[in-house]
Amino acid sequence: MHRALEPSVPWGVEYVSIEEALERLRGTVSIKPTVERVMLWDAYQRVLAQDVVSEVDVPAYDSSHMDGYAVRSSDISSARPEEPVSLRLVGSAPLCESSSMVLGRGEACRVLTGAPMPRGADTVVPVESAEASGGVVIIRTPLPAGSNVYPRGRDVRRGELVFERGRRVKAADVVLLGKLGVMEVDVYRAPRVAIVPTGSELTEDPRTVSEGMVLETHGWLAAKLVEEAGGIPVKTPPVPDDPEAVKSRLAPLLDAVDMVLTIGGTSAGETDVVKQAIDSLPGGRVLCRGVKMDRGRVAGVAAAKGRPIIMLPGPIQGMVNAFICLAHPLLLELMGHPKHPPTVKAVLSHPWQARKMFSNFKKIVHVELFWEGDVLKARPLVGETESTKVISSADGFIMVPEDVESLSERQIVDVQLVPGLGGLPSRSKGAG
Amino acid sequence: MHRALEPSVPWGVEYVSIEEALERLRGTVSIKPTVERVMLWDAYQRVLAQDVVSEVDVPAYDSSHMDGYAVRSSDISSARPEEPVSLRLVGSAPLCESSSMVLGRGEACRVLTGAPMPRGADTVVPVESAEASGGVVIIRTPLPAGSNVYPRGRDVRRGELVFERGRRVKAADVVLLGKLGVMEVDVYRAPRVAIVPTGSELTEDPRTVSEGMVLETHGWLAAKLVEEAGGIPVKTPPVPDDPEAVKSRLAPLLDAVDMVLTIGGTSAGETDVVKQAIDSLPGGRVLCRGVKMDRGRVAGVAAAKGRPIIMLPGPIQGMVNAFICLAHPLLLELMGHPKHPPTVKAVLSHPWQARKMFSNFKKIVHVELFWEGDVLKARPLVGETESTKVISSADGFIMVPEDVESLSERQIVDVQLVPGLGGLPSRSKGAG
Repeated sequence: MHRALEPSVPWGVEYVSIEEALERLRGTVSIKPTVERVMLWDAYQRVLAQDVVSEVDVPAYDSSHMDGYAVRSSDISSARPEEPVSLRLVGSAPLCESSSMVLGRGEACRVLTGAPMPRGADTVVPVESAEASGGVVIIRTPLPAGSNVYPRGRDVRRGELVFERGRRVKAADVVLLGKLGVMEVDVYRAPRVAIVPTGSELTEDPRTVSEGMVLETHGWLAAKLVEEAGGIPVKTPPVPDDPEAVKSRLAPLLDAVDMVLTIGGTSAGETDVVKQAIDSLPGGRVLCRGVKMDRGRVAGVAAAKGRPIIMLPGPIQGMVNAFICLAHPLLLELMGHPKHPPTVKAVLSHPWQARKMFSNFKKIVHVELFWEGDVLKARPLVGETESTKVISSADGFIMVPEDVESLSERQIVDVQLVPGLGGLPSRSKGAG
Repeated sequence: MHRALEPSVPWGVEYVSIEEALERLRGTVSIKPTVERVMLWDAYQRVLAQDVVSEVDVPAYDSSHMDGYAVRSSDISSARPEEPVSLRLVGSAPLCESSSMVLGRGEACRVLTGAPMPRGADTVVPVESAEASGGVVIIRTPLPAGSNVYPRGRDVRRGELVFERGRRVKAADVVLLGKLGVMEVDVYRAPRVAIVPTGSELTEDPRTVSEGMVLETHGWLAAKLVEEAGGIPVKTPPVPDDPEAVKSRLAPLLDAVDMVLTIGGTSAGETDVVKQAIDSLPGGRVLCRGVKMDRGRVAGVAAAKGRPIIMLPGPIQGMVNAFICLAHPLLLELMGHPKHPPTVKAVLSHPWQARKMFSNFKKIVHVELFWEGDVLKARPLVGETESTKVISSADGFIMVPEDVESLSERQIVDVQLVPGLGGLPSRSKGAG
């Protein structure tokens, strides 16, 4: 059988689109987030499974915005530099700490920043704008009511919808939850993702590398990508190229995790060990092998024991691309956060051309981002699927659609940033 | 003493610029990163303290890029569909695993993807482009020399400078280090940063919140910001508003960490506990109190026992801004990575105006980022310094210089993104 310039599908099935691969998986297994209740602090970086409606006002009471004197503004409305008003000092900070205190006409009370306002007081005269001597406070300037007072409910009102379900909780969100008095919250469970690197040549022991073994690093990378995305990686040691060994590894893992990523062992021929292993598992079914994406076309998706399995190619670029296109969206769905990666616009610094055989595939073009004056530029990185340098140099990637074969210099592109893979560059060096 | 519309400096010292505050600190204590050697895996997210020059070629040998047959291209140059070339099959994958094998004229050897090429062979015919039967491989198309071969040194050449000192190590960098055989590497030690929240009203115990105590969350936030920046937070419980208590807390910490962040207790008057505590420590000196930044002007910097202390204001916006402007750059210097935060260009969706009293300060304007069609927009967030909602809603901030008082709608601005505080938004929802 001879095929010239077209992608070969040695295992006799068609290449399917990324979308079709994911749809087949969604149609076969359930990709649904589950909910758990966690303490406030543990909500950090998790995804809210509930709306958060405030049951309180924040702040809970009118408080002083300055160190100074709580007064009634009507008492000082006539104050002038040359005709000051004298108020009777009726208490100082510690006395004012209970908001049950009442301030009468002609009275002033010493308050510290953040202290509840005494009842009756509506204004704080800053300490440096008043003169206190004996039991008297002298004020030379009027202030409108409310001056230097931080009013109850200014930041959040009772009944206000503060956070919507599906929000990824930032550090400052935890602070806000604390101020709302929300000490426990429903979040989606972080998905457990098993990582199974295959290859008899792989070792995790650096001491054996010189004996012809290869250090297992792609599974480690996949684990970091899972972690950065918000999942819990369950990284397992490399498994030899033997269908029985792969099967024995997968069977118990599938009961314990939400998703499995296999790495390597997806090529045609004798070493097609992952497919053989999956086929032999209960409910095991390879749903597609060969995905219309370049690099990474030998990726596949499968299901066994009701769990999704993403078959990542062994070479690093194919592995990373299959992670980005197949594993990452499912992982985000499993954690209740089905969003595209953060995106930035950049100007292409060099032209880019699809590989002829795969021009009608989706192309993942890794780019290096850099600032040229005021312009964020993206330099396309080109290299074999085995090139670690491409992935190491990449700050983000462009997803080039099926019907686009080339990108021109100076074209504006959408660069997607996947946590753990890259990020935005700084404008310049030097702190300060 | 009466002052009208100008910022008051109750403690009788001048406000200094952010740069001046940092310079005073750098002139008083040593801000220098130190080096440690770590295992490959532990280099993740650390900053390289050495250049990395490759001592090997990656890959180390010519290898097959496909499952197929290793051949001499000259042997198949005459192959045509109607006039195929027959080669003698002299081995299969396992036999080829040693690169000492030599392929003679007219011979082919079965190879798997990644296998070293036998000596003499320069081309791989993919398995699906050849027919094997008995001991013979039939090939119907010529291939140029080098086809489907991944040559030695293609990704990295021996002697090549792969990473420069000062690079923050990404996950894929660890993979590349592994492929270079670099199992240990010099990185800068992650700085330890103690966090000391002050305030007699603060508690870490959610059960005591209803008894009039306030949940300590700002120290927790500072710890997360330190962590996200790459430091090791040493978060301590809240300390009461008592100079002796603050001193007792600070004294041993200063011996154990690289930097201290105090929170709160920087106001004028009786509760100016942090200054009193620092003044009483060996070598204790407040270098500036009052920084030309809005919000956050009551921040300060100090030194004691040869260590830098950043005095963060208590209210959240002031605290976060002082962290961004004073603590973050020093933290990055201490970890050998003195870079500005990542930056993105955005279009302002609304005008913004400086507060009159502080228009000649540096202004930190927190913004929410969102996509409007193809345009990344920034909405300025305005609120009291106590507003947690401002910080929780913020994706980044604009640093407005001293001589700029306002920003207009549709103005293009630089938005800085500090890890842990915000990030870029996605273009759209929905996975796939």
